[in-house]
Amino acid sequence: MSEPRRIDAARATAAFEHALAEHSQEFGKFFLAKLYGFDITFPEKECEVAFEALDFMFNPQGTLHGGVIATALDISMGHLLRRAAGPGTTLEMKVQFLSAIRGGKVRCRGRLMRLGKSVAFLSSEAFGADGQVAAFATSTWKLLGSP
Amino acid sequence: MSEPRRIDAARATAAFEHALAEHSQEFGKFFLAKLYGFDITFPEKECEVAFEALDFMFNPQGTLHGGVIATALDISMGHLLRRAAGPGTTLEMKVQFLSAIRGGKVRCRGRLMRLGKSVAFLSSEAFGADGQVAAFATSTWKLLGSP
Amino acid sequence: MSEPRRIDAARATAAFEHALAEHSQEFGKFFLAKLYGFDITFPEKECEVAFEALDFMFNPQGTLHGGVIATALDISMGHLLRRAAGPGTTLEMKVQFLSAIRGGKVRCRGRLMRLGKSVAFLSSEAFGADGQVAAFATSTWKLLGSP
Amino acid sequence: MSEPRRIDAARATAAFEHALAEHSQEFGKFFLAKLYGFDITFPEKECEVAFEALDFMFNPQGTLHGGVIATALDISMGHLLRRAAGPGTTLEMKVQFLSAIRGGKVRCRGRLMRLGKSVAFLSSEAFGADGQVAAFATSTWKLLGSP
Repeated sequence: MSEPRRIDAARATAAFEHALAEHSQEFGKFFLAKLYGFDITFPEKECEVAFEALDFMFNPQGTLHGGVIATALDISMGHLLRRAAGPGTTLEMKVQFLSAIRGGKVRCRGRLMRLGKSVAFLSSEAFGADGQVAAFATSTWKLLGSP
Repeated sequence: MSEPRRIDAARATAAFEHALAEHSQEFGKFFLAKLYGFDITFPEKECEVAFEALDFMFNPQGTLHGGVIATALDISMGHLLRRAAGPGTTLEMKVQFLSAIRGGKVRCRGRLMRLGKSVAFLSSEAFGADGQVAAFATSTWKLLGSP
Repeated sequence: MSEPRRIDAARATAAFEHALAEHSQEFGKFFLAKLYGFDITFPEKECEVAFEALDFMFNPQGTLHGGVIATALDISMGHLLRRAAGPGTTLEMKVQFLSAIRGGKVRCRGRLMRLGKSVAFLSSEAFGADGQVAAFATSTWKLLGSP
Repeated sequence: MSEPRRIDAARATAAFEHALAEHSQEFGKFFLAKLYGFDITFPEKECEVAFEALDFMFNPQGTLHGGVIATALDISMGHLLRRAAGPGTTLEMKVQFLSAIRGGKVRCRGRLMRLGKSVAFLSSEAFGADGQVAAFATSTWKLLGSP
């Protein structure tokens, strides 16, 4: 029987304890965003979600899990929308996975495609450490009210 | 200044420690799946991913984060595909969010729509505690080899 | 130089003249639906769009064009929604193409996944002459008012 | 009883007869592309599909039918891919409809997001006569062989 393949427990524990200490369940700093180490900024009318791909976020094949990428892309769009037009709910999101991420810095850049009165369309690109697009998301949002 | 809104630290810590102790980076038991408490089974030629929606998985609006739902849906399809045809990579996934989940048991049921020689199409439904469909995913996968 | 590959001009002309004579720009009988020979019915709370795949609807590879399939799927969902909740506009639609259609009868079956107050989610399956699912669509709609 | 609302029969007939005379079932000039008056060019490593939105292409609400837009977007991506890497089949396509088109010139611009060995990812924007993006598509393709 083979040994279990383990993640780096020290780094995962540091991420968890940081999230536990620093989070508050509001935009920009809720627990999940803190756990994944998401650094959320708003450069050039876009929203950037930057983080380090650590092995506790990996799939069994040893690359960044699509669900984590989807989470980061979703947040880059949701936080941008909230800043532009107040909170919204995701009606749907599609993510295309162009290439696998095996570690290093990941940056997602969300941008508004169209902001209507009751609906908004957004997209976001995830860039790997090599600067190439690793994933691309488009989404449709229902606006919930004013900013 | 308002108090930070905190998650239930004890439950999150229990989830984290459980994941740290029990995970192995392979199908069915990798860290992320353990952290979210995913119970992965294969009833009736489908794959079910069942878990309890805990507040550390929530968005700032107090409902289960779309990224967590996407992660569970993705796993329900990826694990089913692996069982049916060996490992694959997600080319794309779309998730529609039909209603918000505010807690309780969540069950995702992945199923094969079509299994080709090099490509597979899958879908998955996420059911909330009330038995209603809360989210629906479709995805396209590239097959990597034999089971 | 090779001969141009031509479609069956008589059948296309018959389809065109039928559409010109019979259409009215309203639900169920607008020009495009008539041109493609769409027979639109409402069995079992669903909407069925049935038609014969003729070669004037083909792509250069000799199979039913994805755009025609998308048109039929869209109509099966839009007409069902209109019947259930009044007219709506498609916010987005995704179509997966599971297998090519080389002729014969095609049937699209649209169904409601969820009808909300301002937004609806629908899906539709396109069946080829062999009864197999050839394409699968999901869509999100904005409701425009009452039926 | 109200009069049937009719399309401009002369313009539709001209489009149909032009398509019948000029088509050949190959890339760039197949019947459907000719019927819709698609002018297909390849500026700046992209593929542009330009056409006039005529009323025979409209939905019952009096705007360009989403199925026609999907057809044009699909062709802008498929023809670009064929030029870059040989013929492919659409595995899936998602279209978001940002605003309605009520007439005038429409231009779709397809571009390659990533060209892999067996799979390609493309996107395309449809611009209305006002130069605004009216629809946005992303798609995933399986490559069939060499150019």
